[in-house]
Amino acid sequence: MEHIVYLNGALMPLSEASLSPLDYGFLYGYGLFETMRAYSGRVFRLEEHLRRLRWSAELLGISTPLIEDLASAVYDTLEANRLANARVRMTLSAGRGEPIPDISSCKEATLLVTAREYTPHSDEIYQAGYKAIISTTRRNSASPVSSLKSLSYIENMLARREAVSAGADEAILLNEHDSVSEGSTSNIFLVSGGNLSTPAPESGLLPGITRGVVLELAAQAGIQATEHPVTTADLMGAEEVFCTNSVIEIMAVTAVQHQQIGTGKQGPVTEQLHSAYRMAIASETKS
Amino acid sequence: MEHIVYLNGALMPLSEASLSPLDYGFLYGYGLFETMRAYSGRVFRLEEHLRRLRWSAELLGISTPLIEDLASAVYDTLEANRLANARVRMTLSAGRGEPIPDISSCKEATLLVTAREYTPHSDEIYQAGYKAIISTTRRNSASPVSSLKSLSYIENMLARREAVSAGADEAILLNEHDSVSEGSTSNIFLVSGGNLSTPAPESGLLPGITRGVVLELAAQAGIQATEHPVTTADLMGAEEVFCTNSVIEIMAVTAVQHQQIGTGKQGPVTEQLHSAYRMAIASETKS
Repeated sequence: MEHIVYLNGALMPLSEASLSPLDYGFLYGYGLFETMRAYSGRVFRLEEHLRRLRWSAELLGISTPLIEDLASAVYDTLEANRLANARVRMTLSAGRGEPIPDISSCKEATLLVTAREYTPHSDEIYQAGYKAIISTTRRNSASPVSSLKSLSYIENMLARREAVSAGADEAILLNEHDSVSEGSTSNIFLVSGGNLSTPAPESGLLPGITRGVVLELAAQAGIQATEHPVTTADLMGAEEVFCTNSVIEIMAVTAVQHQQIGTGKQGPVTEQLHSAYRMAIASETKS
Repeated sequence: MEHIVYLNGALMPLSEASLSPLDYGFLYGYGLFETMRAYSGRVFRLEEHLRRLRWSAELLGISTPLIEDLASAVYDTLEANRLANARVRMTLSAGRGEPIPDISSCKEATLLVTAREYTPHSDEIYQAGYKAIISTTRRNSASPVSSLKSLSYIENMLARREAVSAGADEAILLNEHDSVSEGSTSNIFLVSGGNLSTPAPESGLLPGITRGVVLELAAQAGIQATEHPVTTADLMGAEEVFCTNSVIEIMAVTAVQHQQIGTGKQGPVTEQLHSAYRMAIASETKS
């Protein structure tokens, strides 16, 4: 069956969906996206994703009457593709404008939703964890763009390419002060002395929805969690390191730059939080 | 007459040109562009623009058999639109891939050329010069992306929006060390003691083709020119400041943050270099 996508209010086969080459998403990376997971037909923390998208769109001056119907756009796309367990991407750009850098020339935003079946990694992969490298690219903590999930994603893509070339699964980006910022497509957590820590937004990162859920779950479990600057030495010396995003959920990082972290496999705090995360999914995505 | 665009080897009316919504230019800002000027049907320093595009494409791992025909693509587009004096944009993206961040899923690059008639600013505007602000956004001198003219252009666009909101013409970006980097769509030069200076590429800027031409012309005119870190104080205290890009060529900056620079109008060195620039155009674009 051909993929069905949602584009600007309508569902259509992917082959019939087309964008203007003058879309500002394409010309200038001027837009936003969200990546979400559907479990048994329900999208986990959908409202939080949509709230972030709406807030960021306001900041970029992108408005669309479709902004009220984002949740239906997501569910209609899932249903049209008969998907229950899926990875969903919503993309919002400023839409078509003149090919000169002038946002005021954009009249109508572009809203796209795509969904693909998603099969989670095996338990073996979660046990073994990810190997990470430290990217040569640095995050800019002084840029307002670092806190937006924008279509100007080339830095993240280059960091990912670096990881793939090195045979690793994820690339960790430092900021201009040599402090850990985030993974190329994830947030980073450390466990030290049984406590949790993660870089604060001031380190130049995108505070992910999953990151927020992990902080909530840690509080519920009585695990002390703080947001503060993290050095590479903190990372290397941690008992456990893990990374989070909406797709992989919570994944142990068991090596950084070929150096083993902790025991070299998923640690107990990581496992405990991932169990709690899956329980939250189960309870919140019940039909 | 409807605009004709060049897309992937063919000329077509803009209304018939369409992109896949899964183009990596759109999904991830993964691609490049060049902005050029045609004078009497000839594109000034075309080969330098194309060389930069090819070099950057190699760095991003974007390849296309069309890479050998870029110059024809530009001239065919100009001719199809019957344009002699024009602003030309060439865009190259990784093309369509899967909506997950995986460059290896892209099979065929997207190459787009658009051209629009361009009427230069009046001499009065060049005399009065631009008003500039210092953007709150910072350039990241440690990012390899700062030296690419990539489709991930949102930072520049936000800086432009800041300028427009403040009633200014250009926004100047500092880097993370508080050093002047570049304008949102231009490079910055200072004249002090009759000598020229401009931030070095290490300051986190895109070394523009026009910037290179200005350095050449200064050398020919016996004006000493150096590339070194520039502070905001240097800027404010300069005899003359100007900004450069392929479209506006050389434009005086006569105020920064509402403070007058030099005499508050185009200075003699700026004018001399702009005359030399126009002579270079005239001699190099003769048919």
